[in-house]
Amino acid sequence: MFDTIVARSNEIADDLIAVRRDLHQHPELGWEEFRTTSIVVQRLRELGYIVRVGKEVCEESARMGVPPAEELESAYQRALQEGAPEELLEAMKGGFTGAVGILENGDGPVVGMRFDIDALPLAETTDPEHFPNREGFQSVHANTMHACGHDCHTSIGLGVAQLMMEMRDQWSGTLKLVFQPAEEGVRGAKSIVAHGHLDDVTVMLGSHVTASNQCNEFDIYAGAGGSLATTKLDVTYTGLASHAAGAPEKGRNVMPAVATAILNLYALPRNSQGETRVNVGVVHAGSGRNIIANNATMLVEIRGANTQINAYMEEYARRILEDAGHMHGVECEITKTGEAISLESSPELMERIDRVAEQVEVRPASPNRLISPGSEDYSFMMDRVQSNGGQASFIRILVDSPTAGHTVTFSPNEDAMVRGVRMFVGTALDVMALR
Amino acid sequence: MFDTIVARSNEIADDLIAVRRDLHQHPELGWEEFRTTSIVVQRLRELGYIVRVGKEVCEESARMGVPPAEELESAYQRALQEGAPEELLEAMKGGFTGAVGILENGDGPVVGMRFDIDALPLAETTDPEHFPNREGFQSVHANTMHACGHDCHTSIGLGVAQLMMEMRDQWSGTLKLVFQPAEEGVRGAKSIVAHGHLDDVTVMLGSHVTASNQCNEFDIYAGAGGSLATTKLDVTYTGLASHAAGAPEKGRNVMPAVATAILNLYALPRNSQGETRVNVGVVHAGSGRNIIANNATMLVEIRGANTQINAYMEEYARRILEDAGHMHGVECEITKTGEAISLESSPELMERIDRVAEQVEVRPASPNRLISPGSEDYSFMMDRVQSNGGQASFIRILVDSPTAGHTVTFSPNEDAMVRGVRMFVGTALDVMALR
Amino acid sequence: MFDTIVARSNEIADDLIAVRRDLHQHPELGWEEFRTTSIVVQRLRELGYIVRVGKEVCEESARMGVPPAEELESAYQRALQEGAPEELLEAMKGGFTGAVGILENGDGPVVGMRFDIDALPLAETTDPEHFPNREGFQSVHANTMHACGHDCHTSIGLGVAQLMMEMRDQWSGTLKLVFQPAEEGVRGAKSIVAHGHLDDVTVMLGSHVTASNQCNEFDIYAGAGGSLATTKLDVTYTGLASHAAGAPEKGRNVMPAVATAILNLYALPRNSQGETRVNVGVVHAGSGRNIIANNATMLVEIRGANTQINAYMEEYARRILEDAGHMHGVECEITKTGEAISLESSPELMERIDRVAEQVEVRPASPNRLISPGSEDYSFMMDRVQSNGGQASFIRILVDSPTAGHTVTFSPNEDAMVRGVRMFVGTALDVMALR
Amino acid sequence: MFDTIVARSNEIADDLIAVRRDLHQHPELGWEEFRTTSIVVQRLRELGYIVRVGKEVCEESARMGVPPAEELESAYQRALQEGAPEELLEAMKGGFTGAVGILENGDGPVVGMRFDIDALPLAETTDPEHFPNREGFQSVHANTMHACGHDCHTSIGLGVAQLMMEMRDQWSGTLKLVFQPAEEGVRGAKSIVAHGHLDDVTVMLGSHVTASNQCNEFDIYAGAGGSLATTKLDVTYTGLASHAAGAPEKGRNVMPAVATAILNLYALPRNSQGETRVNVGVVHAGSGRNIIANNATMLVEIRGANTQINAYMEEYARRILEDAGHMHGVECEITKTGEAISLESSPELMERIDRVAEQVEVRPASPNRLISPGSEDYSFMMDRVQSNGGQASFIRILVDSPTAGHTVTFSPNEDAMVRGVRMFVGTALDVMALR
Repeated sequence: MFDTIVARSNEIADDLIAVRRDLHQHPELGWEEFRTTSIVVQRLRELGYIVRVGKEVCEESARMGVPPAEELESAYQRALQEGAPEELLEAMKGGFTGAVGILENGDGPVVGMRFDIDALPLAETTDPEHFPNREGFQSVHANTMHACGHDCHTSIGLGVAQLMMEMRDQWSGTLKLVFQPAEEGVRGAKSIVAHGHLDDVTVMLGSHVTASNQCNEFDIYAGAGGSLATTKLDVTYTGLASHAAGAPEKGRNVMPAVATAILNLYALPRNSQGETRVNVGVVHAGSGRNIIANNATMLVEIRGANTQINAYMEEYARRILEDAGHMHGVECEITKTGEAISLESSPELMERIDRVAEQVEVRPASPNRLISPGSEDYSFMMDRVQSNGGQASFIRILVDSPTAGHTVTFSPNEDAMVRGVRMFVGTALDVMALR
Repeated sequence: MFDTIVARSNEIADDLIAVRRDLHQHPELGWEEFRTTSIVVQRLRELGYIVRVGKEVCEESARMGVPPAEELESAYQRALQEGAPEELLEAMKGGFTGAVGILENGDGPVVGMRFDIDALPLAETTDPEHFPNREGFQSVHANTMHACGHDCHTSIGLGVAQLMMEMRDQWSGTLKLVFQPAEEGVRGAKSIVAHGHLDDVTVMLGSHVTASNQCNEFDIYAGAGGSLATTKLDVTYTGLASHAAGAPEKGRNVMPAVATAILNLYALPRNSQGETRVNVGVVHAGSGRNIIANNATMLVEIRGANTQINAYMEEYARRILEDAGHMHGVECEITKTGEAISLESSPELMERIDRVAEQVEVRPASPNRLISPGSEDYSFMMDRVQSNGGQASFIRILVDSPTAGHTVTFSPNEDAMVRGVRMFVGTALDVMALR
Repeated sequence: MFDTIVARSNEIADDLIAVRRDLHQHPELGWEEFRTTSIVVQRLRELGYIVRVGKEVCEESARMGVPPAEELESAYQRALQEGAPEELLEAMKGGFTGAVGILENGDGPVVGMRFDIDALPLAETTDPEHFPNREGFQSVHANTMHACGHDCHTSIGLGVAQLMMEMRDQWSGTLKLVFQPAEEGVRGAKSIVAHGHLDDVTVMLGSHVTASNQCNEFDIYAGAGGSLATTKLDVTYTGLASHAAGAPEKGRNVMPAVATAILNLYALPRNSQGETRVNVGVVHAGSGRNIIANNATMLVEIRGANTQINAYMEEYARRILEDAGHMHGVECEITKTGEAISLESSPELMERIDRVAEQVEVRPASPNRLISPGSEDYSFMMDRVQSNGGQASFIRILVDSPTAGHTVTFSPNEDAMVRGVRMFVGTALDVMALR
Repeated sequence: MFDTIVARSNEIADDLIAVRRDLHQHPELGWEEFRTTSIVVQRLRELGYIVRVGKEVCEESARMGVPPAEELESAYQRALQEGAPEELLEAMKGGFTGAVGILENGDGPVVGMRFDIDALPLAETTDPEHFPNREGFQSVHANTMHACGHDCHTSIGLGVAQLMMEMRDQWSGTLKLVFQPAEEGVRGAKSIVAHGHLDDVTVMLGSHVTASNQCNEFDIYAGAGGSLATTKLDVTYTGLASHAAGAPEKGRNVMPAVATAILNLYALPRNSQGETRVNVGVVHAGSGRNIIANNATMLVEIRGANTQINAYMEEYARRILEDAGHMHGVECEITKTGEAISLESSPELMERIDRVAEQVEVRPASPNRLISPGSEDYSFMMDRVQSNGGQASFIRILVDSPTAGHTVTFSPNEDAMVRGVRMFVGTALDVMALR
């Protein structure tokens, strides 16, 4: 069984690369993965999966950080022009991207897998030495780039779909392949969980490529921990403009509100119960030098070692934001545009993954758990499964890249995808094998 | 008539000095002028005035910035020990100091005069060259000093009382001599007005000594303007202490509340309608280096060119103070401890004062109105009289002093008091003379 | 003589409107007035004026707030496409716009006049009731609008040029017509003064249209005062980006620097010597929610009742800006992009203007001086003339507009231009008339 | 051997209590432990120890946070009055308190022990139920209290001195008993290390009583870790006073400097390398409501998981403090008044302590290392010994107290001292035993 996995994964290596490069060339931002989703749906249907699409994927009211209607429409039209079939696109109108492929294959465990599919708002480097530039598959979408490897994740997902279908006589149970939109900004996972897709899953797998200088020694970490719960807040202040020399007292000035918010947010108390973070990443305020500024937007994020700490931080931050506005007669509107909880891989599942790795010629790292202070909304999926008594893990696939994720020169080695496919298929079969 | 005033004022010059030096040696803070008031009351009664004392002077509920009971009691005991008669003191218990002397002398105008009697919380200089030190009448009360000349004002008031009584056959009308407590911190005048003492006054006179390098040229300004409306606020923040390393998140920290309040108060908008001022003069916060601070007090004042601007500033300042606390879970208590409105001397009365000055050998300045950005709660008395159709002015008596008022080396030339007496008596007689 | 002025100004009224509408339709921002300048230069030459252009107008090193080269180039190309003659444009390359027309007409006084020609970065309203929309001469340049009436000023200037030439046998002396670029942001005047054009002027006139509800009563104010000295500062902070969760301590964060600067700038002390203003009108900072922000730009302005107060404010503001950056390891770059001093019209000249107004059927307001807290860099021209012993005034031409200047619905009544022409020509002739 | 320890420690229990109560009744602040030191010195000499006193204990230049001379003198006089022998006190003049007792007892290891002796500036509760009140040994020194258990530590130290001397034929080596002054505020240890007392120590023991609800299960933790490196900074701002209404611009205001410092200190970046803390515990600023404040003092502390993080924080904090002053023309003076590094008990020594505990009837906790975020300058002693290749530990002695240390109702159960004596003597004998 494991030998077959090794052999077949090698054989589909070129397909994995081809799919990945097509996606890399046509990156789409969160909730705008129209073309990407249509490719996934087509392939899953070809393979014989039952496929959930459109409003069957994400619970509408639980989606966060959905772009404005015009932006969605413009991305939709682009997908149409790039050849995505209108009959597939239709269900996604208004940002209902993502898909769930289901294969009911007899009694047994329900194994879930998460593959995230969205790109980042970055302009890919024009450096001719950048691998996609050398090979001619660089992004053709302005200011959009697969700089976090989700193109690889999606391609891995489709490879996994193929092998699981091919080997369906060797396992019994149910397989759910979740192609998640809008992971960037931690906006999409919660709405998939809210729809109930994870409710019957007993073993959950997700992964992420990670640039590492340990690639010579290890291929994967079986699990992860230490990630931070997080909340993303978009803040809008609305005041009243007036001439800064003629009648400064007639305005309601957002500037001191913004400044008070920034300083007090960073000054949120350290926490004896665990790590915290806070950041005001972007501020745009005001319309002219001699006008008392009447508008501001701020992109804020907070994090905590666990959900409770994060909730403490969020509540405090909201009070600061509102009061900083109120003291200057300025209205404050706060929108939650993203959210993740902390995650901790299940120890037994990590041990299983380590065992499988040895079988499928993948080198597991030791200790087998990568601690990192980032955030991932896949945590909601893990939490749902673990809360129901199931097991879940978040595998880190080490890659060799000149720079880290979220940079414009990020470029993972493509052969890592083969190892990703092996780990998903190998672990799933280890769980569901007919023995 | 004016000749008599000049002659008699010269004859009582030594008495004026004696009274002033006794008061200078025994300065009393606002609402604690027990000994001072008893001297005033005794003298007024000797002269034959009807005298209002105790709760007949200041409306109890309108008094501001009254010191704590223990402090009042301790000042009271000191006055007793220094020989103030207990039968006089009794009515003043609890800080009901000040007195109003009334002389009803036939039909005619009602002329009011204000003399303020309190001292400042300053330690008089020990410099042997300081005039009171040289002459041996320096303050014997620790950290208390007549550094604003109210000792002179009180002495002038008693001199005026004597001459007006002596010359009562030359005028007809009613005279009201208001000896006001707690002018420092602008705490007392409003409660005297609230009691109704000014309601029937048709001409109101007040004065203040002012250190000036124009003494060689002028003796007085007939009036004043440009003073700022003001509000004094005492602010208390109450949070929750916790160990700064062990559990910073368990505290409710007053420090960022204090800091946010300070910066935002100073950042209150400039006003196109007139001058504004704001100051956080004193801050005390916290109890130990490694404790999240749970208490703070701040002494704040705001000012505006007129009552409306000051009200705008006060409302805004209160919102800042409250919201700065609220955002950190910190309770905020704000007490108004002083208040004044702006003042503007009546032009016709200023002209009359100028004319009188020439008659009583006092040199009036030209232009006759001193503009200054300070604040005075005598403004409430002026406002009441002017609102009722009467006239009011605030005479500035120029004095020669090595340093300005509110310094520990302030020392006016004592002969200025003679000129003060002349101006009050001369103007009153000019108004009420039997012709 | 004055009759001729009234008659001729009425006869050219349609020309004034035509020129103004053409300019209104083709507004150009400061230092980009390529088409506008070429129209002015052509007309002045037709009329027989000696015309200074290109680097002969503004001293290169004293120009402030010149846009980036690409922006200048793009505006230049637009002017070419709109038909401005290349031989005229050439001298203006790199933003050397503006012109000075000179008529040496015998011995006598040197009279200078200032007409400003630039527009504002505003998108004109699309409201069909807006007068330019009704009449079809609305701006065809995106986000650019003559919302401050400089189209009228320029048209008045050309009308004045025509009448002064026509009537040249009635006066003797020298006339200098300064068509100033980049008044908005107070960027241009100083460089014209630096070039020496004002050095020999003995009487200087400038004007500005002012929306007023007094139009039924008055047509002009003969002079102005109370304007504030001002400095415009562009501030750039450069820090170091890092991941806000992964390594916040590795970044150098511009956000707390920006916030500290904002609060402390607004908290600059009030000044007992006169009015002050400060504004942070625009802030853009940061590149992503989860990135420690490494860049920020702020548009700041400060003002003071006079040059000394403004200098105090500027020095203090620069220290705040630099130290707020330095404390966070953030580099601060400050560029002065505009500057004006305060202005005060010469009393004798205002009286002359009032007398002239009566002669040319224009109603002068009384008192004749408009106090306003704005800023104008024409003040540099006035100051140069007044410092040399000459006289200068700044005439306010009252107009009827639905909204004030600097709004997208500003629309002055066009017949006011006739009165503007009369005042310039009338006053100049009154000064230089052959009697 | 261990049986003897158990037996003898029980027999001296009443002595331990008597000594502790006498110290509790006469608490002395850091560098003022004149009476306490004289008791220690007398007892050590009686027992036969060589005793270092005065300038032989702490390196003069390395002492931090020494109180002003008058305060030292006043404490000195109090000690004299309370019967401390002048011949002993003399060497301590100027705050040279503390003592080192040495017993050279043949070849072998050098074992060091640290006992801290100072009290806290707290007013002990007057609650009649408070144990010291019930038993009549409450503090007789105003605002001074042994609220951190150093009275117990000192008493334990003297008990240990007695038993080690009694049992000197059972061990071989050198014993150094360090009675450290000024542990509160982490001011004293560094100067003892600087004097060289720890240079030859191979095994170092210290302890601290810790209020715990685990007293029913455990008596001690063998070691400690997680303590934070810390720096204590006293900050003084000096500006220039001026009248807040009359001439605010003439002052140099410390208030916005203080506020800017507070907010930016709390806003110091979180650190991905480990815990950080920052606190502004106390602020006193200004002298009068209507005066631009010209003076402020702030008590600041920073902490970091290790020396490097703490150094990063200190450097950043100093920059903030200085620049916040500089931007307002305010001078900033920063004095380091305390310092500690992080500590980590040596694993082998902790194992030894656990083994000993079992032998002397003390229950060790498991895991045997207490993590806590406080700071201790005993860390300098541990570091010196560990850097030289020796072993060091910091034993936590669990006590039952109604409230935690540093509260006015702290009251440990006195029988815990017996267990403290056992652990010190037991471990020392285990290290140095003649076998």
